[in-house]
Amino acid sequence: MDLHLLVDRDRKVASLEDALRAAIAGGRLTAGTRLPPSRTLAVDLGLARNSVAEVYARLVGEGRLEARVGAGTWVADRPAPGPATTAPVHRSARFDLDLRGGLPDGSAFPRTAWARATARALSEASATALGYAPPEGAPRARAALAEYLARARGVVGSSEDVVVTHGFGELLGLVGRAVAARGGRRIAVEAYGHASHRELLAACGLEPVPLPVDDDGAVVDALAGASVDAVLLTPAHQFPTGVPLAPARRAEVVRWAERTGGLVIEDDYDGVFRFDHRAIGALQAQAPAHVVYGGTASKALSPALGLGWGVVPAAWRDDVLAQRRRSGAATAAITQLALAALIEAGDFDRTVRTLRLRYRARRERFEDLMAEALPGSRVVGLAAGIHCLLELPDGIAEADVTTAAAARGLRVDGLSAYAAAPEYASARPPAMVVGFGAPPAHRYEESLGVVIEAIRVAGGNPTG
Amino acid sequence: MDLHLLVDRDRKVASLEDALRAAIAGGRLTAGTRLPPSRTLAVDLGLARNSVAEVYARLVGEGRLEARVGAGTWVADRPAPGPATTAPVHRSARFDLDLRGGLPDGSAFPRTAWARATARALSEASATALGYAPPEGAPRARAALAEYLARARGVVGSSEDVVVTHGFGELLGLVGRAVAARGGRRIAVEAYGHASHRELLAACGLEPVPLPVDDDGAVVDALAGASVDAVLLTPAHQFPTGVPLAPARRAEVVRWAERTGGLVIEDDYDGVFRFDHRAIGALQAQAPAHVVYGGTASKALSPALGLGWGVVPAAWRDDVLAQRRRSGAATAAITQLALAALIEAGDFDRTVRTLRLRYRARRERFEDLMAEALPGSRVVGLAAGIHCLLELPDGIAEADVTTAAAARGLRVDGLSAYAAAPEYASARPPAMVVGFGAPPAHRYEESLGVVIEAIRVAGGNPTG
Repeated sequence: MDLHLLVDRDRKVASLEDALRAAIAGGRLTAGTRLPPSRTLAVDLGLARNSVAEVYARLVGEGRLEARVGAGTWVADRPAPGPATTAPVHRSARFDLDLRGGLPDGSAFPRTAWARATARALSEASATALGYAPPEGAPRARAALAEYLARARGVVGSSEDVVVTHGFGELLGLVGRAVAARGGRRIAVEAYGHASHRELLAACGLEPVPLPVDDDGAVVDALAGASVDAVLLTPAHQFPTGVPLAPARRAEVVRWAERTGGLVIEDDYDGVFRFDHRAIGALQAQAPAHVVYGGTASKALSPALGLGWGVVPAAWRDDVLAQRRRSGAATAAITQLALAALIEAGDFDRTVRTLRLRYRARRERFEDLMAEALPGSRVVGLAAGIHCLLELPDGIAEADVTTAAAARGLRVDGLSAYAAAPEYASARPPAMVVGFGAPPAHRYEESLGVVIEAIRVAGGNPTG
Repeated sequence: MDLHLLVDRDRKVASLEDALRAAIAGGRLTAGTRLPPSRTLAVDLGLARNSVAEVYARLVGEGRLEARVGAGTWVADRPAPGPATTAPVHRSARFDLDLRGGLPDGSAFPRTAWARATARALSEASATALGYAPPEGAPRARAALAEYLARARGVVGSSEDVVVTHGFGELLGLVGRAVAARGGRRIAVEAYGHASHRELLAACGLEPVPLPVDDDGAVVDALAGASVDAVLLTPAHQFPTGVPLAPARRAEVVRWAERTGGLVIEDDYDGVFRFDHRAIGALQAQAPAHVVYGGTASKALSPALGLGWGVVPAAWRDDVLAQRRRSGAATAAITQLALAALIEAGDFDRTVRTLRLRYRARRERFEDLMAEALPGSRVVGLAAGIHCLLELPDGIAEADVTTAAAARGLRVDGLSAYAAAPEYASARPPAMVVGFGAPPAHRYEESLGVVIEAIRVAGGNPTG
């Protein structure tokens, strides 16, 4: 666990004590959170082990921590006495580890670069730029994104085409409502994907119609007979099966859109994270008039920024912006300006490069470990992104793995949890969707160990 | 004009030149923007006037600036040659000054404190806090807001009751849709208010039903016969007429809500800005189970933060959050954590105090000037907030003042522009809604001068 404590170099012991107390009082270290062994923390901070143990002991004495020999030290369950605080005391999550698909490593967020970008954006913004942001986004952010997306993803469009949203989810809602407002009733979705996206589309008044997914991605030939007004796709890296949409299928989607006037929504959630230097460009480039390109800062930076973007065909822009005005939502201008500053300074590219190396190493480690520990399993999907599919050894059920993992404090879902309809829950070999991005680095091996153990337990063979 | 240029202390002339070039190339100084006289800028920067004049001349030579003797220097109208940039070149706004109601002074935003709060929030946030924010908001922000609102506005509620939204607008949309989803059809609104709020409610499927407004605020006795499911009010400071809701009327609203189960939405947009130390608490405190309290950081900090908050009765919380999940929108966790850090450090209180003094001085100056220059006019409304109503001298029409002001580059609206229905456009004496918060300090006197001139011109008496 990384405590993220700011400890003063010159008075480390007192400072550690203060920092821990503040983190507990402020609710950042929540009840039940385990602290690292005093020995570990002492090494990290360059302190004598006894000094750390004394700090722990004092806080135990104050009722802020609890400790038991052999069980370690953790944050106490009740509000600590002391300075009044209205911060809520959270119950600790029952899940301590998380390997769900699509989550990035929160500890990898470039905190310093973001703080610097914010400060720079603030020092440079005109008073007008600190007013109400236009619904399409701040001009500087739209310009920076247009440049970046053209360069990194081959997206075709100028800053005029860019809309800055609250993540991909808000974009999807805006486009879905715009489609419904024009009389659209049905939207094709991939047979495996985020349930939240399907629910969002249903809330827009569109019926999600599943398209089968095979090793070439979504079976888009089915679009012709599906009577749909639009289609939501993950062409670069199907979520969660991990395959790219085959070139012939990309061409087929474009033909369908041109023939029918149907709208394609491209969810390019992790397009920048391909490890083999063969990144395939955005589908949008093949038909900019028919594709809404959508991206997000949630994977490369953090979901906590609440930043996403769309590149919207001119024919749909007014409709999408009208939906946004109606919703009362917008994206904070300061966050947008900080993103622009981050991109302009090259820090966004640097972050993506760093993460790409880190996630590639994780993916390779994952493949090696599974091949070694679970010979009957198979890792499926592109060498890309922050998740892959692990097909289970014969006879092991997804639900049993999820249950065995949960009993060990780890969240991980089976492929069937992403199925758009019951028939798809059993249409493919049982597999776990493993998001290898989420755990902090120092808990990655541990997380994989728990997955392996859970699969062995589910297979009735706990010792491998 | 504050250029917000970062000029290097040791090489000021070259640095000024670079900073200006970058600001123009980056689109921050837009075409048509006037630069300060070289004499003024020289004094500000501690440079010789000639040095500044030379910098201006070089940039004029490059086509980046234009100048004319007697008319000053401004940013040139066409994209400057030079390093390629994808930043758009914006057309300058035709309006150079803005006295519309409800806009805060963008130059007053505590940039340094906000950058510091962001850095602190980032250094303290757990990796989990940098994940997807829950739809109700980040726990630390909800706790800080619950404490602040209880202290500053007497709001009754714990952090559990707080929802963090994108400004008041998003909250209003969520609550409006929740009311409609329960079968609500009609919502009472004040006969004068933001057209955008009425449009937002209509988009939620609710019919806005105007309540007359008199010197005691909204005539809430009319609620009983209005067959409405909810009512939107600005009890602390009616927008835009500037009067508070009289105590008897506050009690009447509460009785109506308790009797009918109708929902009250309290828009407390500037409740913290009362100048006479007689701040009246939130209406919500009188009936927490029936009132959604709504507030915003747009006035005290900046609309660019995109931060607002609601304190929502328990019986409505799930409905409101369900609407939020359906919209795909949320509020960026980092922005929320920075707000919490700002409040915790006392910087939010300090900012409010500073602004209160500044806005009080502006209000007093406004009253003095109008009394002196326009004896037939009358300033109406509480000594509070960042706007007031200026009733016009006899025989002068609002539209003529708006037109005369626009011809002079100033935006200012008449009261009728805020009327909820045609009959209210002429129900009160002609008056201008003057938002004295918006202009930066160094252009405040000039803005008031233009208003006075526009009123004199509209009255056929340009020289007073």
